Amino acid sequence: MSDRRTEIVRAATRVIARRGVRGLRVGELAAEAGVSTSLIYYHFTDRAGILRETLQFIGERAERYTGGPGAAGWADDPWSDLEQALLPELQDTAEVRENSTAWGELRASAVFESSLREDLARATHTWVHEIADLLGRAHPAGTAPAHAASAERLTALLEGLSVRWLSGSLALDHARSLLGEAIDAELGACRQG
Amino acid sequence: MSDRRTEIVRAATRVIARRGVRGLRVGELAAEAGVSTSLIYYHFTDRAGILRETLQFIGERAERYTGGPGAAGWADDPWSDLEQALLPELQDTAEVRENSTAWGELRASAVFESSLREDLARATHTWVHEIADLLGRAHPAGTAPAHAASAERLTALLEGLSVRWLSGSLALDHARSLLGEAIDAELGACRQG
Repeated sequence: MSDRRTEIVRAATRVIARRGVRGLRVGELAAEAGVSTSLIYYHFTDRAGILRETLQFIGERAERYTGGPGAAGWADDPWSDLEQALLPELQDTAEVRENSTAWGELRASAVFESSLREDLARATHTWVHEIADLLGRAHPAGTAPAHAASAERLTALLEGLSVRWLSGSLALDHARSLLGEAIDAELGACRQG
Repeated sequence: MSDRRTEIVRAATRVIARRGVRGLRVGELAAEAGVSTSLIYYHFTDRAGILRETLQFIGERAERYTGGPGAAGWADDPWSDLEQALLPELQDTAEVRENSTAWGELRASAVFESSLREDLARATHTWVHEIADLLGRAHPAGTAPAHAASAERLTALLEGLSVRWLSGSLALDHARSLLGEAIDAELGACRQG
């Protein structure tokens, strides 16, 4: 992505995290990014195009703060790698809060805006696939469908815990310990299977 | 609740499920319920009052279609009772779709609207407590904190799966099987503990 393009997508993430997807108007986004609306249409064609790249940006940024496959922080211990891929999504930094708020809001909006669904399903699939891959490395004897099911449960649980935290129904430390126990249980279940 | 009051809350649930919490204006709600805006203010004082009773209505309705503690459909087999309390939240009926869409939307909106948080946290706590109680009956030898943690995971997972289903990222049958396996795993974990 060009720098200008990236700056617009960053601005879209900020606006969504601050006021929601339904608050996102191209005029407001242009003001936030410090560019003209015509430049936004030039780069993204329409609102759906902006949201598509925003989903991708949120996913890539999450990969950075979770270490991401093959990153320098990667421990090469599959169990730790799995924790490192999931637990950093529950931490109180401005970046994680913004990313998780925007992701949760895109998820919630797709219930009402069908145009968002295909891109969101693709982003979800990519994430589940990465976690399933880590589960496969942590438990090579397990089956691929079992790893996929565990990955779907862990990522759906993480989404559920994250929005409970962000909506004030769950303390962050407690959310982390609930997720940590679920990771152990899924790996335990894999090892028995 | 009076019939008129109930009808207004039902109408609020419909409007939220159709257009979101942020689409809920008292004037629109009055039109949907077929009453005057002044009658709405008379019964609920303000928008926060409407949303508070809507959360309560959604919870009570979910208790009806999940059987609810002590209902006629209750099997008196704690494992089945637990499945019966959770799995019916994932079924494609108009009532469940409307209830789950409205609940998910209230959850997502509370990230942005802090006035919703206290009531939502209370409704979440009530639900977690009911599920923890069922886990306690299914596994009397377990500890209360372990039952509470399992209940928090199962209900957060259910919220995560439900919004994935409603947003088109997950097939309903698959969501049900993922939740069923999680129930078994939590009860298995309880029995080992």
